[in-house]
Amino acid sequence: MAESDKWVLMATAQTPTNIAVIKYWGKRDETLILPVNDSISVTLDPKHLCTTTTVAVSPGFEQDRMWLNGKEISLSGGRFQSCLREIRSRACDFEDKEKGIKIEKKDWEKLHVHIASYNNFPTAAGLASSAAGFACLVFSLAKLMNLKETPSQLSAIARQGSGSACRSLFGGFVKWIMGGDENGSDSLAVQLVDEEHWNELVIIIAVVSSRQKETSSTSGMRDSVETSLLLQHRAKEIVPKRIVKMEEAIKNCDFSSFAQLTCADSNQFHAVCLDTCPPIFYMNDTSHKIIGLVEKWNRSEGSAQVAYTFDAGPNAVLIARNRNVAAQLLQRLLFFFPPNSDRDLNSYVLGDKSILHDAGIEHLKDVEALQQSPPEINNIPAQKYKGEINYFICTKPGRGPVLVSDESKALLNSQTGLPN
Amino acid sequence: MAESDKWVLMATAQTPTNIAVIKYWGKRDETLILPVNDSISVTLDPKHLCTTTTVAVSPGFEQDRMWLNGKEISLSGGRFQSCLREIRSRACDFEDKEKGIKIEKKDWEKLHVHIASYNNFPTAAGLASSAAGFACLVFSLAKLMNLKETPSQLSAIARQGSGSACRSLFGGFVKWIMGGDENGSDSLAVQLVDEEHWNELVIIIAVVSSRQKETSSTSGMRDSVETSLLLQHRAKEIVPKRIVKMEEAIKNCDFSSFAQLTCADSNQFHAVCLDTCPPIFYMNDTSHKIIGLVEKWNRSEGSAQVAYTFDAGPNAVLIARNRNVAAQLLQRLLFFFPPNSDRDLNSYVLGDKSILHDAGIEHLKDVEALQQSPPEINNIPAQKYKGEINYFICTKPGRGPVLVSDESKALLNSQTGLPN
Repeated sequence: MAESDKWVLMATAQTPTNIAVIKYWGKRDETLILPVNDSISVTLDPKHLCTTTTVAVSPGFEQDRMWLNGKEISLSGGRFQSCLREIRSRACDFEDKEKGIKIEKKDWEKLHVHIASYNNFPTAAGLASSAAGFACLVFSLAKLMNLKETPSQLSAIARQGSGSACRSLFGGFVKWIMGGDENGSDSLAVQLVDEEHWNELVIIIAVVSSRQKETSSTSGMRDSVETSLLLQHRAKEIVPKRIVKMEEAIKNCDFSSFAQLTCADSNQFHAVCLDTCPPIFYMNDTSHKIIGLVEKWNRSEGSAQVAYTFDAGPNAVLIARNRNVAAQLLQRLLFFFPPNSDRDLNSYVLGDKSILHDAGIEHLKDVEALQQSPPEINNIPAQKYKGEINYFICTKPGRGPVLVSDESKALLNSQTGLPN
Repeated sequence: MAESDKWVLMATAQTPTNIAVIKYWGKRDETLILPVNDSISVTLDPKHLCTTTTVAVSPGFEQDRMWLNGKEISLSGGRFQSCLREIRSRACDFEDKEKGIKIEKKDWEKLHVHIASYNNFPTAAGLASSAAGFACLVFSLAKLMNLKETPSQLSAIARQGSGSACRSLFGGFVKWIMGGDENGSDSLAVQLVDEEHWNELVIIIAVVSSRQKETSSTSGMRDSVETSLLLQHRAKEIVPKRIVKMEEAIKNCDFSSFAQLTCADSNQFHAVCLDTCPPIFYMNDTSHKIIGLVEKWNRSEGSAQVAYTFDAGPNAVLIARNRNVAAQLLQRLLFFFPPNSDRDLNSYVLGDKSILHDAGIEHLKDVEALQQSPPEINNIPAQKYKGEINYFICTKPGRGPVLVSDESKALLNSQTGLPN
């Protein structure tokens, strides 16, 4: 390799994960990843849940390579290849006079990429890591290769990596428009409102302990499309009306409607899973208990305080109408689901710990002191379920992808292009 | 009371319970109990699961009274009153010259009844005790009061006590035709085939240990009708086609179709429950494990060996294609769900114990000796779930109601009309 070829050009980005409040379940095209209905999500604060990805090109790289959380993984999968191909075909002329790097549009195809990606949350916890991951891959490559596409246009590329990834290209509340074109060009995400629009909301995620191996969402939704007699009815008759109502609720910060629609749509998605042959169970008894807790509390208050939604796993995503409610919710969650005795509070409640402070809980002994059943339980001695929750994450709606300019945050070495 | 008024006229009947293979979920009329779709059930052998009811009239009785499992209960409920009223209005002239009893049609209205009812299985176990109960009440009263109605006509009366009770008026496989009349006169049960038609089938019921209080089916189905957006689609578009296919499968003893339809319809009923607001969960993690076990086994065999169906509770009703399969099923169930160490086999496997014998299991040590995972588990060390099942009942399709002529079996004293 000539000395002049030794340059490494890099870009680092940080991209949030998202949780659907109107669910995506079912593809009408498996390869292009085109859904059977629109969906709407809320972007989660990247401070607590995000993917960071560094991408690099160098004439010295001999092949495309990728590392996830420090471990090299294969890039041969069709979904990675789709994203790489789509990005490369849109790459533009680039010049960095200072470093003496000049790459013409046609040259990008010849340059291999190195990709290093890192999640600030457990990859296997069922927290939509692939959504943040593919969104971050596409966003960082687009920056590196000087694409001129809008975030929505980029979302249509990220969609081909993982459907829900398209919704991670924006902060706040995001709608994935299913589109109608056969080539998928109009199946993309748009921002409904940014993360400042409804900034009262607080989100608490309950990561449920589970030893059950779950059906992957890819194969699960394929089975549902092929066998559920309810799925098409949901997609064609029910979701379109819900989307309209949900957009309205979000625009008006109408928590009652928002909660009603969010809970009903989560339950209906799981109903379609159950209507699949063989049936798919993502929620378990712990999930059911959390739903029971929220439903009972909401009813006793006479209006919705908390919305729940569950993706393809048992974890609950709980959306509280404001900080005050979130603190009460956390008290209830810790009352019913105290940590095992070998755990410390610091590793049991993650994310925004100020909610813990608001709840008056500073130490494990404060959890033990939560003797009093919540008022809605009236007199029934409440059962406790120690150990059923792995940990909680307190967070809120958050911003979309950002470029990380601080080179010290890069995951690849700027000289070698290999993981730091 | 004059000496001549001291006679007590009695009738005793035994009526089976039934389990739906195409489910009834949702009423179009709450008072008349008219369903939103047809349903099909299999009648369970009354030897293992039945209600015995003795009804009596006497000029000496001062009011209508009822005892269930020896305990007096109120007859004031609308459903009891509906059944009593409908039966009395159809009562006919009766004469027993030997005993010197003569009751004219118009006199029945004035005679009070005593009713004693007994289930040979736990009432609270979620095994459709109200179906057998109301069927037996109506059948025994019809015999006592000399009604001329056919069993189908009687089923329309039993329906007003408990919807699924109408299907307990026949043995074998039974269809409840939803009907179209506003007064409910054509919403009644008919026998599809008798219990001899498909006599290879073996049924194993797994009564699941559960401390959760379940939503009553009456209020659950009301909530579903009011809130589930999937229920009407199921009732109008899906069930009618399934009914046709299920009748065909039953007529042809086509187990593959039967199992596919039975499992799919059970899952869809629970999907509608989940689509209800607030969502209803009848199945729990143990139910899910049993479904997983059956689905995995059926797939590994390449054809259905066992069908599963769940009513408004966590208990599994498992229908094996023949005795040989039933013995293998029982081995698998005991392998995964061994009894707690303080239990004996005799109280853990109830009903037709010859299935245990076929499975080569005579003692608890034979259960412990089931070391080998079933072949479909290949190499994965199988987890065991001790204590999650309360007990199993082995049974088969059975006959319809019968009159018990042996007076020693009566539950009321022939002199006093009070419980024995």
